Amino acid sequence: MPTNRQILLDNRPQGEATVANFKLVSTETPPLADGQVLVRHHYLSLDPYMRGRMNDSKSYAASQALGEVMIGGTVGEVVESRSAKFQPGDQVVGMGGWQEYAVVDAAQPGALRKVDTTHIPLSYYLGAVGMPGVTAWYGLVKIIDPKPGETVVVSAATGAVGSALGALAKARGCRAVGIAGGAEKCKYAVEELGFDACIDYRQHKDMYSLAKALKDVCPKGIDGYFENVGGMVLDAVLLRMNAFGRIALCGMIAGYDGQPLPMSNPALLLINRIRLEGFIVSEHMEVWPDALKELGTLVAQGKLRPRETVAQGIASAPEAFMGLLKGRNFGKQLVKLI
Amino acid sequence: MPTNRQILLDNRPQGEATVANFKLVSTETPPLADGQVLVRHHYLSLDPYMRGRMNDSKSYAASQALGEVMIGGTVGEVVESRSAKFQPGDQVVGMGGWQEYAVVDAAQPGALRKVDTTHIPLSYYLGAVGMPGVTAWYGLVKIIDPKPGETVVVSAATGAVGSALGALAKARGCRAVGIAGGAEKCKYAVEELGFDACIDYRQHKDMYSLAKALKDVCPKGIDGYFENVGGMVLDAVLLRMNAFGRIALCGMIAGYDGQPLPMSNPALLLINRIRLEGFIVSEHMEVWPDALKELGTLVAQGKLRPRETVAQGIASAPEAFMGLLKGRNFGKQLVKLI
Repeated sequence: MPTNRQILLDNRPQGEATVANFKLVSTETPPLADGQVLVRHHYLSLDPYMRGRMNDSKSYAASQALGEVMIGGTVGEVVESRSAKFQPGDQVVGMGGWQEYAVVDAAQPGALRKVDTTHIPLSYYLGAVGMPGVTAWYGLVKIIDPKPGETVVVSAATGAVGSALGALAKARGCRAVGIAGGAEKCKYAVEELGFDACIDYRQHKDMYSLAKALKDVCPKGIDGYFENVGGMVLDAVLLRMNAFGRIALCGMIAGYDGQPLPMSNPALLLINRIRLEGFIVSEHMEVWPDALKELGTLVAQGKLRPRETVAQGIASAPEAFMGLLKGRNFGKQLVKLI
Repeated sequence: MPTNRQILLDNRPQGEATVANFKLVSTETPPLADGQVLVRHHYLSLDPYMRGRMNDSKSYAASQALGEVMIGGTVGEVVESRSAKFQPGDQVVGMGGWQEYAVVDAAQPGALRKVDTTHIPLSYYLGAVGMPGVTAWYGLVKIIDPKPGETVVVSAATGAVGSALGALAKARGCRAVGIAGGAEKCKYAVEELGFDACIDYRQHKDMYSLAKALKDVCPKGIDGYFENVGGMVLDAVLLRMNAFGRIALCGMIAGYDGQPLPMSNPALLLINRIRLEGFIVSEHMEVWPDALKELGTLVAQGKLRPRETVAQGIASAPEAFMGLLKGRNFGKQLVKLI
């Protein structure tokens, strides 16, 4: 059996997460038991939710146990199978974790899913046509539920979730406005992702300045907001929300390290009769088939052209993850493992 | 025609509202035109929403114009009528404003409604069986939508809205927990209003202390929260909300004067997948008949026994309103005008 390099969570962050929280180890993959398959991972997905798992405190999911392989979505190829459901050569998506190989119990519902790479590159199943895409779909369709002509704003607009959000909003006849960090990302959001406008939040020193910029590109106000970051960006958007606006609260990455970031003026939620809803997509498996179908079609039609930042080799995963938390990635952050 | 004493908004608050923002004037009531009725007000309702109207800034309703009679709910008796719909002696509820008499166009939909005082005192139509009661009903039934056995918490528990919320929650088999200011109010909440427990927030210096007290009386966590005050109380409740909890955001009176009060840790809305919704009851007229029917039945059955604080005479209205904003009232704040 092949040697398997793995990244374990070694210790919990004190404030900011660092690469020293992780440890790289090598193990031998065990022989397969009946019903198991061995998957060689081609790509590991890095996602903001992983930061929450590193803490011991109450979060929406169980803490990542110390000394165990970090949780993570993976795509790869079956290299050995003792299950009738999978054959060597099958391309699969799963939650294989931060490691080069995984032994998977094929009978466990949802553990492994075969995917078709005829029209869609394998790595996209970790992004636009995977969990991040479905996350955008759920927040837009089930929470924001926009009417044609409404204005929908998303933060972290060029990320895996934001990219999908923009394409899904445009497909519904909405005005789609992004917020991102840096001129290059904003240019990409408009020219490649189809956003009607994108604001570089780094050009604004406070929420009032950012709110004024939002006013210029959202002349009819903001009807729906998909929140990935929190902090000043959320404060600014709240100043421009229309009456009966909807906010899908998906992430607050700006506050993941250290002290909680406050919301400056929650009374705006009352004044504008906002509906705000926090969600995590893994609790809404019932929407995945519909969502993946629409996302796959948008990709196949060239209406959703996601960008990827790819780190090479399992050993690079911790550093790449730090970059994701700082917004240094551009589009979907992946680690290539082959 | 009788002399009519009125309270006008004379100037807008700079920070805290004061009695100097108001002016008392006397006018003659004009002769009635065809279709009009003259109502003599018995009671004026004082409500927190009025504070928002005093500002010039964007709020959920139009600003109160300077130099005009302050807006307000009233109950009274028709003393003269040139409409076939009303006779002298009819008892009516309306939005007559801070004045002793009002000339009302009887044909205007919803302007004036006859009420029956056989089983329900006239003043209750401004409280438990009026706008505050329907406010509680909407937030509980349409937003919190609790299941039997769930725990529902309300701030300002002995106020007009809070009292009704408690009775409505108990009628649905919930555990009802109040938060109020002072031992006397808490005793009343439990002994007279039927709350299972009530916490005196004034005994707690910060949100952590208040959250610990909430834990003691909400051993299964908090499933629904009806928010009237904001600030530290909201922060504390958020620390104890269960996954998939619902928050009906009705008022944030703690921040009505001066600077906005922040929400300390909005990430809790995500972590616990909370749904939060701001509302104002006047935008949901469709629920009023059902709500008033249930509230009237609860009052008639003695299951909702609201308390009133009654100021005497129109000249006392500004001072009584300051008391309401400071929480010096006990139960529904009224001004008796006869």
